[in-house]
Amino acid sequence: MARAWHLKSRPTGMPTHDNFEFKDLADTPLGDGQIRVRNSWLSVDPYMRGRMNDVKSYVPPFQIGEPLQGGAVGEVIESKADGYTVGDNVLHMMGWRDESVVDAANTMMPPQKLPAGTDPQLFLHNLGLTGATAYFGLLKTAAAKEGDVVFVSAAAGAVGSAVVQIAKAKGMTVIGSAGGPDKCAWVKELGADDCIDYKAGSVLKQLLAAAPKGIDVYFDNVGGEHLDAAYATARNNARFAICGMIDAYNDGKPLELLYFMRTISARIRTEGFIYTDYIAHIGEFMADAGGMIASGKLKARVTVKDGVENTLDAFLGLFSGANTGKMLVRV
Amino acid sequence: MARAWHLKSRPTGMPTHDNFEFKDLADTPLGDGQIRVRNSWLSVDPYMRGRMNDVKSYVPPFQIGEPLQGGAVGEVIESKADGYTVGDNVLHMMGWRDESVVDAANTMMPPQKLPAGTDPQLFLHNLGLTGATAYFGLLKTAAAKEGDVVFVSAAAGAVGSAVVQIAKAKGMTVIGSAGGPDKCAWVKELGADDCIDYKAGSVLKQLLAAAPKGIDVYFDNVGGEHLDAAYATARNNARFAICGMIDAYNDGKPLELLYFMRTISARIRTEGFIYTDYIAHIGEFMADAGGMIASGKLKARVTVKDGVENTLDAFLGLFSGANTGKMLVRV
Repeated sequence: MARAWHLKSRPTGMPTHDNFEFKDLADTPLGDGQIRVRNSWLSVDPYMRGRMNDVKSYVPPFQIGEPLQGGAVGEVIESKADGYTVGDNVLHMMGWRDESVVDAANTMMPPQKLPAGTDPQLFLHNLGLTGATAYFGLLKTAAAKEGDVVFVSAAAGAVGSAVVQIAKAKGMTVIGSAGGPDKCAWVKELGADDCIDYKAGSVLKQLLAAAPKGIDVYFDNVGGEHLDAAYATARNNARFAICGMIDAYNDGKPLELLYFMRTISARIRTEGFIYTDYIAHIGEFMADAGGMIASGKLKARVTVKDGVENTLDAFLGLFSGANTGKMLVRV
Repeated sequence: MARAWHLKSRPTGMPTHDNFEFKDLADTPLGDGQIRVRNSWLSVDPYMRGRMNDVKSYVPPFQIGEPLQGGAVGEVIESKADGYTVGDNVLHMMGWRDESVVDAANTMMPPQKLPAGTDPQLFLHNLGLTGATAYFGLLKTAAAKEGDVVFVSAAAGAVGSAVVQIAKAKGMTVIGSAGGPDKCAWVKELGADDCIDYKAGSVLKQLLAAAPKGIDVYFDNVGGEHLDAAYATARNNARFAICGMIDAYNDGKPLELLYFMRTISARIRTEGFIYTDYIAHIGEFMADAGGMIASGKLKARVTVKDGVENTLDAFLGLFSGANTGKMLVRV
């Protein structure tokens, strides 16, 4: 019998186990146009916290009493949909469970057949949402170009580590920020010119030392003190791509910015984005990122939690820095 | 003997009379390439507060012991510069004094001969820095277009009142914010569809009522609570032109934003600008604004202080809302 994580109540602040329930799914016969997938890997991502609130956003909120959703890859074990055969590997959005029933005709997010010979896991990180978010945010939203000085927070995270490598592959100077010496060492291994340990002292002081002439681009995954330090050090015509604000997802406190006013004197452009804004460019991304992966320029580290029953802990770990690189659940 | 306002010490927080000195200028014979101008009108503008700090910005700081500077118009009374004749009306940047010696060869800001038959005062507001700031910020930085819902703070101020009128002339819906019923009444007279009195209650609540479907463009002159309300109500792909933050010029406190995170879900673009960024388009501005002035679509109200000795009080009044429309000093 298939099992899934359900939303029991909407969290206030940091989610706890009380907000969720792991339980059996009713056995349902497959309808026309549907496939049944035995999942091998599940993705947990910070953006999912937003879907736990009952607010209108770019994706609809999770419903109380219903299973959660998210990126997953697995093998088709039953098919009533044209074009899908038992044994196919697919990427789909019905994760947080060991077995998924997926509508092949879902127009927003149809299940995507994966090419043979490519590790399916890649489609949950560097060839998937994670990689596309890094790629489009850096190169489209922030319009980063060769020679730019790029600052990226959560640089040891899934998106951040991809930003570091893509920026280096494109000839930029990269300063990362991460929590602790081990993560910083890995960020430098990925090619970053410098890495700030935000747990070791003031982000602003360390950033001023690492980028004495200032930054051209800031790729924001955290908000808060990092964002303010970016405003403080931005050069003229700097561009900020706002991807996530993990510092703020759970606390509900106002963002405090001492240096926002430099927006005027330095003509800083701050812009939010979701990777789907650039979906028309997905072919360009797949080709470019695929090439970087093949040549070893774009690597991933994966933090693995074993067992679908540990999916919630994997998710909660994102907010305490438990992951280096991409957090995945092996079902 | 010419007299000028000098900077005596750098203000901390709100400037006071102690930071300034009004005194005689030494008599100086005119050098080659210089003109002497008897000023008729002086401009005081919020951005001048920034030049009183000793920080690198888009204009160099005022120097202690030296006269302040700013926009002024007046009549040439002596000329040793080609192309300038006694009796010419000119616009120049050596204000805060009754009589100015101006370098005609100043490459940054040469004195500009004014056309006969046009009120020279116009070049200190709707045909000058004020009007150009409104025009470029609205139409270039924020890329506002017909049908957009535009929110503008300090809408009874010099720049704000021009934004209101230009936006209406271009077919936009305009919601202004101003302090008190008299100013709001004037903002509506200028054509605004609605005007929020920020002294009468929560900006956010009033803005939600005035723009129930949200805003496409925010023209920011004040920062603080207004900026946060704009983040709260921004529609998808909204554009914010950050022109000034008069709330923050003097207080040094952090900006507190509860709704900044909507930058991501609504893909808000926030961008700072200075009108000189668009100096290549100044001809387009002069033609378009000139036409709107001629047809009565772009009007100005001027708050006049008489006497060069009251220039400082005129300037200080900008921070307490003493002006409706453009604040000018009649020398």
